[in-house]
Amino acid sequence: MTADATRVLASLIRRNLTISVAESLTGGLLGATLTGPAGASAAFRGGVIAYATELKASLLGVPPELLDREGAVHPGVAAAMAAGVRELTGSDYGLAVTGVAGPDPQDGKPVGTVHIALRGPGDRVWHRDLRLDGDREAIRSGTCLEALGLLVGVLEANTGEHSG
Amino acid sequence: MTADATRVLASLIRRNLTISVAESLTGGLLGATLTGPAGASAAFRGGVIAYATELKASLLGVPPELLDREGAVHPGVAAAMAAGVRELTGSDYGLAVTGVAGPDPQDGKPVGTVHIALRGPGDRVWHRDLRLDGDREAIRSGTCLEALGLLVGVLEANTGEHSG
Repeated sequence: MTADATRVLASLIRRNLTISVAESLTGGLLGATLTGPAGASAAFRGGVIAYATELKASLLGVPPELLDREGAVHPGVAAAMAAGVRELTGSDYGLAVTGVAGPDPQDGKPVGTVHIALRGPGDRVWHRDLRLDGDREAIRSGTCLEALGLLVGVLEANTGEHSG
Repeated sequence: MTADATRVLASLIRRNLTISVAESLTGGLLGATLTGPAGASAAFRGGVIAYATELKASLLGVPPELLDREGAVHPGVAAAMAAGVRELTGSDYGLAVTGVAGPDPQDGKPVGTVHIALRGPGDRVWHRDLRLDGDREAIRSGTCLEALGLLVGVLEANTGEHSG
């Protein structure tokens, strides 16, 4: 995963862009991955770990009615988390992940359900919605890899990808 | 490190207490460690990754004049980060780490300088100030281990430890 983080950071630094993260199921692992390589501070600003559902509302501004209606594991929640952390930290990009690491389902969603959202300049949003296999550790690390993949794809392609 | 996290979580859950984290040099690794074990959500609420110095002020309420005077690597900064995240998240304990992971010194402090602070009920504060050896990865994982050690020591001893 270090190679992926290094590639993402190089891509951001080359473009003079900054990133922050909003994490639920990964609990900080995405930020830890992005700050593994030396020199990360040139692009990585920080983030919010909103593990408890209510912190998604109070810290990141996710609409409580969305959380009430859909639960915490939803593409719209990921998109709102990404918007919230982007604004809070004043970063060019906000990258958010929410999902079910297991071992138990959450809010009626099966283990391995993962929603990733990236917010960028002009408040554009890109989504990646997944069902990952494996145990808790595999789902958490797989989520980070997919999140980095979404980010690097958007940065390097400069396309209007809007999957999911 | 999983065993340490499991022990900390069990100790918190047994006492019906919650924890949140505020991280600088670890970039999310402390939160990731605490959410590794299944069932972490019974005690772990969330946190703030304040990697950029200015986010320590804007997100966690660390006094800007303290950051201007002492830099980001200082026991008082760790204590303010811990107080900030405890209040933001409504947790019983706030655990904060700041320091220099390297490879370069920061704010005049050598690589391996680490300050850990724990805030608990009644706004009591416990400190652990360290000089860790090793490379960037060793310093970051060592910081997490020491932070968990401080927390479990305070929980299990119920003493008025105030080292450093």
